[in-house]
Amino acid sequence: MPTTARICVNARSYALPREPLVVVCVDGCEPDYIGQAVASGKMPWVAQVLATGTGLLAACVVPSFTNPNNLSIVTGVPPSVHGISGNYMLDPETGKEQMMNDPRWLRAPTLLAALADHGLKVAVVTAKDKLRTLLGAGLRGICFSAEKADRCTRAEHGIDDVLASVGRPLASVYSAELSEFVLASGVWLMQHERPAVLYLSTTDYVQHKYAPGTPEANAFLAMIDCHLARLEALGCMVVLTADHGMNPKVGMDGKPQVLYLQPWFDKRLGEGEARVILPITDPYVVHHGALGSFATVYLRNPDKAAELCAALHDVVGVEAARVRADAAQSFELPADRIGDLVVVSERFHVLGTSPGRHDLHGLDRPLRSHGGISEQLVPLLINRPTPGIDAARRWRNFDAFDLALNWALPRAPVCAATSSGSADHPLAA
Amino acid sequence: MPTTARICVNARSYALPREPLVVVCVDGCEPDYIGQAVASGKMPWVAQVLATGTGLLAACVVPSFTNPNNLSIVTGVPPSVHGISGNYMLDPETGKEQMMNDPRWLRAPTLLAALADHGLKVAVVTAKDKLRTLLGAGLRGICFSAEKADRCTRAEHGIDDVLASVGRPLASVYSAELSEFVLASGVWLMQHERPAVLYLSTTDYVQHKYAPGTPEANAFLAMIDCHLARLEALGCMVVLTADHGMNPKVGMDGKPQVLYLQPWFDKRLGEGEARVILPITDPYVVHHGALGSFATVYLRNPDKAAELCAALHDVVGVEAARVRADAAQSFELPADRIGDLVVVSERFHVLGTSPGRHDLHGLDRPLRSHGGISEQLVPLLINRPTPGIDAARRWRNFDAFDLALNWALPRAPVCAATSSGSADHPLAA
Repeated sequence: MPTTARICVNARSYALPREPLVVVCVDGCEPDYIGQAVASGKMPWVAQVLATGTGLLAACVVPSFTNPNNLSIVTGVPPSVHGISGNYMLDPETGKEQMMNDPRWLRAPTLLAALADHGLKVAVVTAKDKLRTLLGAGLRGICFSAEKADRCTRAEHGIDDVLASVGRPLASVYSAELSEFVLASGVWLMQHERPAVLYLSTTDYVQHKYAPGTPEANAFLAMIDCHLARLEALGCMVVLTADHGMNPKVGMDGKPQVLYLQPWFDKRLGEGEARVILPITDPYVVHHGALGSFATVYLRNPDKAAELCAALHDVVGVEAARVRADAAQSFELPADRIGDLVVVSERFHVLGTSPGRHDLHGLDRPLRSHGGISEQLVPLLINRPTPGIDAARRWRNFDAFDLALNWALPRAPVCAATSSGSADHPLAA
Repeated sequence: MPTTARICVNARSYALPREPLVVVCVDGCEPDYIGQAVASGKMPWVAQVLATGTGLLAACVVPSFTNPNNLSIVTGVPPSVHGISGNYMLDPETGKEQMMNDPRWLRAPTLLAALADHGLKVAVVTAKDKLRTLLGAGLRGICFSAEKADRCTRAEHGIDDVLASVGRPLASVYSAELSEFVLASGVWLMQHERPAVLYLSTTDYVQHKYAPGTPEANAFLAMIDCHLARLEALGCMVVLTADHGMNPKVGMDGKPQVLYLQPWFDKRLGEGEARVILPITDPYVVHHGALGSFATVYLRNPDKAAELCAALHDVVGVEAARVRADAAQSFELPADRIGDLVVVSERFHVLGTSPGRHDLHGLDRPLRSHGGISEQLVPLLINRPTPGIDAARRWRNFDAFDLALNWALPRAPVCAATSSGSADHPLAA
């Protein structure tokens, strides 16, 4: 048996890539988007992958939000290990609410940084800039966002002049084109920089607006299919997964079906006794109004958490309500970064704080959102066969690198590395 | 307090209608069909009902199929009482599989028959003829199907010459027009026969093909909205509910995601040890290939049921597997008309017997189907306010008549009946 160069990150061992590896996180890619697009012939590359490669369904991290899941994918571990429990949090030290975009919140190294340290060329492109600093934590390589592609510098992003190189104009942060910029950048990077590992992360602007099978969704998925086919043609192993699914969140009146938690707690406990935090919150809320299916609540008197959870179970629209320890265990979350209890809403409901704190004027279509258990299933596809895996086990989206590096058969003839040193690796930078 | 004429059926007490009552069972009406259609302005009448009347979500009977639910709606009780456990069953006496369309299977009187016996004029129109005999059991009144509207006789159906009266041609059993015929017949009946109670039941041909929010679904819902508005204009109290919801049932390849149970059991137990029955089966399987999310299984050795259920829980796509007694209790089913165990599949999966026994050639679009817990939520709307109800309790679709007759405020000034005798009732036939 040939010696294979390996790397160990967060207690998981990975073989080094033997052909360029592209992992694409398609934000909000409910599996049915793929099913409907494939059925109507809009994703011929994916159809081919499902026939000759690997097509699995995987469970994402709950809360099914962007930051926790992207970080799980690139670290290979759940938030209980990497520490990113949401897009937004209550800082337990300062008592202030804040975004969770800063790498100081990250408790685990990324596989991306480790691969780069091992001498492999690594590149990362995200749609929104909010993810760039987290995904780029400790990374010596290329890392930029489509949102701020016009401001890239070699010093900070490992690349400059991106707009001219990719040959596309800067896209609006609320557009399908922002994601297309990510994918086009990936193709350009593979052509001109040939990274050993490329991580691409899109935005769910389209999925927040359009249901699976609609012409708009199908056109978006067709665009993705087209770019992934190009990456395969460039000799890459390509993995498609997602950070979370997406569901309609409206009642029969077509309006958002919102369970406002702050008044519920205020009525039971009195004002100022409970503080509701929505980890979906981020600076880009136009398309979902900060309404998602996961909330965490801090109580002045944490002893009441169990009683409140029991009462929440009877509230229409609540799928689960768990005290901190239970939530941390069942959802694999860092107990010190969630509140005294966690609430998850059902498929057609979202959770809000107070009506006045959600601006829904930007919603020009019936609300679609995510965050709950009902958005936990995501695709996990590879354009390579993976003989020997148990397809029926509970795969996670953060098994993406494991599946690709340890189980997928590379297309090219395997040239075994002669030592574990990076200089000998065929894809060393 | 005025004396109100009442009737008691299956241990539930109902006030007699004080204005004509129309209960419409919109087959396969997942609530999101209404939400999306209302949001795009296609259901102005329903939008008005939600604003000024009553809009609830209700749980249908599992198995979420047509026959058990229509019979529950018109009897006010679950299948454990009325006996109709599916569209299709294994006759425990003969050991033969057969349709469950015959009234001899019905163990409870319908409220429709009881109201007619009480002297009220009652009319029933179904889309498919399969439901007509069950819904018309013991009923002295008008009862016909759109499917066989050309063959109505006064003797059997209480009406003749339906095509000429309604002024529409006979519709194909696989068409949106079949349901439109039901609604148009309802409007004609209310104009010319003025029944005190009218029950209309459509078919889910459109819902099996088109997702909520698609142009085809919206057009169908708009047609329904239009007819219900006409019935309201004719002075009716109108209830809209459904027999079950509807979900996509395809994998990422766009093909039906089927868990074939017979080979699973044969492999574990040997051939001939288990017999899988799919209660969705009926003569009209072109649009779903007899693939639904509920199955019941008879075992030669029933002692193995618990062990098999435990094993089924680990099978991808299974939402629940319960032994007969548990299934009968939790789903309120007649224990003597289900098998030794019951299997329910998840939202994106259906259950099959053996691959060779399902003809999927008629599926011209990605499969959508029902039968499981994931299709249990349905609308329960009334164009009247219902002060005093607990909107958050677990309403059932078979509370439709209770909600309408006991809780809804009639629009017209109330003329209290002076006695409980039928002759005095303002709507006596």
